[in-house]
Amino acid sequence: MAGNESAGIHLIKKAVEFDNDKKYEEAFVHYKEGIHILIESLKAIQDEKKRVAFRDKISSYMERAEKIKVLVDQSKEYEKYHEQINIEENSIGYSYEKIFSRFLKDESLDYVEVNDPYIKARHQTHNFLRFCEMLVKLTKIIKRIILLTTRDEDTNGINQQEAKLNEIRESLQKRNVELTVKFSEGLHDREIRLSSGWIVKIGRGLDYFKPPESREKLCIGFHDLDLRPCYSTTIDIFHQKSTKFSK
Amino acid sequence: MAGNESAGIHLIKKAVEFDNDKKYEEAFVHYKEGIHILIESLKAIQDEKKRVAFRDKISSYMERAEKIKVLVDQSKEYEKYHEQINIEENSIGYSYEKIFSRFLKDESLDYVEVNDPYIKARHQTHNFLRFCEMLVKLTKIIKRIILLTTRDEDTNGINQQEAKLNEIRESLQKRNVELTVKFSEGLHDREIRLSSGWIVKIGRGLDYFKPPESREKLCIGFHDLDLRPCYSTTIDIFHQKSTKFSK
Repeated sequence: MAGNESAGIHLIKKAVEFDNDKKYEEAFVHYKEGIHILIESLKAIQDEKKRVAFRDKISSYMERAEKIKVLVDQSKEYEKYHEQINIEENSIGYSYEKIFSRFLKDESLDYVEVNDPYIKARHQTHNFLRFCEMLVKLTKIIKRIILLTTRDEDTNGINQQEAKLNEIRESLQKRNVELTVKFSEGLHDREIRLSSGWIVKIGRGLDYFKPPESREKLCIGFHDLDLRPCYSTTIDIFHQKSTKFSK
Repeated sequence: MAGNESAGIHLIKKAVEFDNDKKYEEAFVHYKEGIHILIESLKAIQDEKKRVAFRDKISSYMERAEKIKVLVDQSKEYEKYHEQINIEENSIGYSYEKIFSRFLKDESLDYVEVNDPYIKARHQTHNFLRFCEMLVKLTKIIKRIILLTTRDEDTNGINQQEAKLNEIRESLQKRNVELTVKFSEGLHDREIRLSSGWIVKIGRGLDYFKPPESREKLCIGFHDLDLRPCYSTTIDIFHQKSTKFSK
């Protein structure tokens, strides 16, 4: 084996290690350099059979390197990403689908965490149900929804809240989605985290829609949240790649 | 004026008449022939100024002829069009939006007629409300919805039905859409006609969704009809261009 060839193989081995550890930037540099050396050493190989096998090997590394390049570029995009949506009082057109749908087709999205202290009142549990419906409808492989909320303080309320959330849990189970509900006393932050790394912070949490004109009356916007006027709130969207976690 | 030129102008005049009467196929033939003759006679014109003006005129006819060609082709497509959607018992994914949305962006769609004898019970008026919400959300210039249904036979029921439909009417009014409700005794046909010419016949009318597992319980499909199991029914879609109206 030529010296060059073994150096190339060494680099590729390192690249695969980085690749497995999801250190894509390092993996890409090693693949690139390794492939470069292997192509050089290809010239020295006389045996036709060996040349073909060697070329196939190189092209499979090239393919993987290209895929990694996409991941690296994407990751750099995420690092820069911060979007803010300012919803004005009484504006319409901000259903959960409008906010979230672009993030939901991602095949790496298998769970969603919802931190929202106010999933208590009737309309709030229905908001959460609508949010779950959207996840069931638009995600590909979602397996789990984790809700962190606070207990309803009224003794009767506690039972109702838990009972309602249990109904949602049972219904999700039939769709092979597990709902885990956790209660926290001190929780105040509203944040929705997708396992794909996206973080959506809605100032008011899920409860930013005004009630229909009357709960009794049939009116436009009764069913479709895209037609329901909103309270003013700000939505911040970013990716965990863009976040420095400090204590 | 050369003999040819006046023959060309005569043809164009006929074309414009047909065009105004929306007889596009005849209009197109006349435009085409007229333009052909005018281009021929252009050669004989010496005066540069007259040539330019004449050429401009011809090119405006050509532009109109091209637009008409699109209408003629579209119309021929409509004549062939017949689609049938068979919804199987318990299948999901058939919200009104899934069925109708492709027809709703048409800028010529300014009213919709709904013939459905069963807009009576609570869930049926809510079905109709959801249908109206979709029209408000997805159409561009809709001005009017006409509902033809039958009166609820129960004396108390009549009031409730009219009161509910009035609520929808008032709410639509705020969006500048007029709802006209007509009652018919003999009505049995379920048919939705769009002013753009599309006709959608749903075997069961708007009422083809199963109720949520329990009206009390929060379950997936409670809000989103795309997630609600359906009764089996057949939907036929065609265009009035494809319909021979016989008595």
